[in-house]
Amino acid sequence: MRTLNVELDERSYPIRIGSGVLADSGLILPYLKSKRVAVVTNDVVGPLYLADFVAGLRKQGISVTQIVLPDGEAHKDWPTLNLIFDGLLGEHCDRSTTLIALGGGVVGDMVGFAAATYQRGVPFIQVPTTLLSQVDSSVGGKTAINHPLGKNMIGAFYQPKLVLADTSVLNTLPDRELRAGMAEIIKYGLIRDLPFLEWIESNLERLMARDPAALAEAVERSCRNKAEVVAADETEQGERATLNLGHTFGHAIETGLGYGAWLHGEAVAAGAVMAADLSRRLGWLSDADVARVREIHLRAGLPVKGAPLGADRYLELMAHDKKVSDGTLRLVLLKQIGRAVITSEATNSDIRASIDACC
Amino acid sequence: MRTLNVELDERSYPIRIGSGVLADSGLILPYLKSKRVAVVTNDVVGPLYLADFVAGLRKQGISVTQIVLPDGEAHKDWPTLNLIFDGLLGEHCDRSTTLIALGGGVVGDMVGFAAATYQRGVPFIQVPTTLLSQVDSSVGGKTAINHPLGKNMIGAFYQPKLVLADTSVLNTLPDRELRAGMAEIIKYGLIRDLPFLEWIESNLERLMARDPAALAEAVERSCRNKAEVVAADETEQGERATLNLGHTFGHAIETGLGYGAWLHGEAVAAGAVMAADLSRRLGWLSDADVARVREIHLRAGLPVKGAPLGADRYLELMAHDKKVSDGTLRLVLLKQIGRAVITSEATNSDIRASIDACC
Repeated sequence: MRTLNVELDERSYPIRIGSGVLADSGLILPYLKSKRVAVVTNDVVGPLYLADFVAGLRKQGISVTQIVLPDGEAHKDWPTLNLIFDGLLGEHCDRSTTLIALGGGVVGDMVGFAAATYQRGVPFIQVPTTLLSQVDSSVGGKTAINHPLGKNMIGAFYQPKLVLADTSVLNTLPDRELRAGMAEIIKYGLIRDLPFLEWIESNLERLMARDPAALAEAVERSCRNKAEVVAADETEQGERATLNLGHTFGHAIETGLGYGAWLHGEAVAAGAVMAADLSRRLGWLSDADVARVREIHLRAGLPVKGAPLGADRYLELMAHDKKVSDGTLRLVLLKQIGRAVITSEATNSDIRASIDACC
Repeated sequence: MRTLNVELDERSYPIRIGSGVLADSGLILPYLKSKRVAVVTNDVVGPLYLADFVAGLRKQGISVTQIVLPDGEAHKDWPTLNLIFDGLLGEHCDRSTTLIALGGGVVGDMVGFAAATYQRGVPFIQVPTTLLSQVDSSVGGKTAINHPLGKNMIGAFYQPKLVLADTSVLNTLPDRELRAGMAEIIKYGLIRDLPFLEWIESNLERLMARDPAALAEAVERSCRNKAEVVAADETEQGERATLNLGHTFGHAIETGLGYGAWLHGEAVAAGAVMAADLSRRLGWLSDADVARVREIHLRAGLPVKGAPLGADRYLELMAHDKKVSDGTLRLVLLKQIGRAVITSEATNSDIRASIDACC
């Protein structure tokens, strides 16, 4: 088992990474406020892991409420969130109850937001079961639900007490979700860790073949990058926004097509290629750099072209982005491979040109 | 104009109290992140004050989005909260937009929660227009909406940047709401400020007649008590819970009868009398003390008997209270007049006896 810490003063917490950590419920016990938890999962992950996980907790003398949500980004909404509140109130869960998110990014984001707001805040633990959530969304305390007019528009910064990333559960992950997770792993290399990008380029076949050692290495190095960025800028006043490389274009694709048509990681991959293309138009990347960005995503089986929504629709959707400040759209672009910046230097006509070229 | 400060380190903020502060929009300008605000009010307060308030802001060069909600505790729910998000997203309000709550406690609680969660947090300002919200709910950062199974069950601790309490708006307040506000004023005297209680007992007729100087004095002394308690215990780990004298019984009444049947202050008044009766059963208050508590509420035109829901129903509803910890119901009771404690010493049979005696 590998352990990393996210350093946030009194909100600091560990990330434990390894094969089989899910079965070791003794790992959770020290992080509970009382011997009462509510495990929230979805109807895809639940049948695979819920019974064993709950049995392990009960063996530790922990009282467990179980809540199962419908799976999918399309359900990352208020009615589904409210199923969590219904379950907690129906079983009289109080402020000392710890919520445990057992699932991917959607479950983690929703359970985190439920924890941030149930009785004005209860503790929670992330148990991410997808590659994407293990390397990104389970770490850093961003929680949210979607609104019809924008992704993750309603949420809170709320840190977990513990993240447990069991790499053995990745064996049951569908291929498409494995690929989607690769998009966020590649992202860390592109924005701030060139040696990691080179390692990914050398080890991509091992990763796609689910080599356990390679996956554990990728999860750890991704989480270390995430933890460093979050520790420096918890509420995204500055550097943290660079983690959103490809996300402004990507969110436009997700919202424009309706949640769930593309996986989040797929949209981010296409968005990263678009951001690279736009960075080239600003004179920051070479043609070879852009080809390199496209190539690594292609090798990971990810889309390298955006959905054909048209530039007008993209710009309309991007105007809702949370990085818009005082009316100005800010984008995460690449000054070079391995170094991202947040900028409003791209003109609308540059952005249109990249959309037209990449969709 | 009187100014008090709520001392919470980097989340500190001033409360400005006086006649006419609403018309002085220059007071707001220094607290904005950008010249963009969204004023949220309801369909009762809006027709009285919205147009002038917005005109004043626009004169300062501020761009204003207006959102009008249906009035009443029955609308303190998700669909109504979502009207705020719809309005903000529809007008592309970004993270630099400041939300301004113009209204009573329901508007303040909902706008505060919207500010806590819109794009994971935007600044907000409280402009309370009822006596109850001026002396209680606008200060301290408790925000929430109701759930069918319990009042204020979904919310956040989220502090405003500024509170503007204009005592002249109390002239348009319905008598019933003025009385409801008195319940929270009396509460400060009962839980921690005996000299203030004595002052209220001596000045109740002036207050009920809306004497401006008496009201300003009552608002200031109430806010000072609230500010001290909040500064000492922002997230209600301890002392802050004493502000909930009468609220556990009161919330049971509000939830049991359906939101809106009783005003919050009315339910709190009856709850305070029930808490006093229960304190007597524990040997802490004398018969004369209980009579004193009943008398001051009676003189303020407030209910001194709870709704006849039956003890079983009360206990069932009270089991959902946020002060329940690890399954144990904790109540705010009076060790003496002017000193409240949080206790789990009252047995179920004591509680039943007080419910039976007071309803």
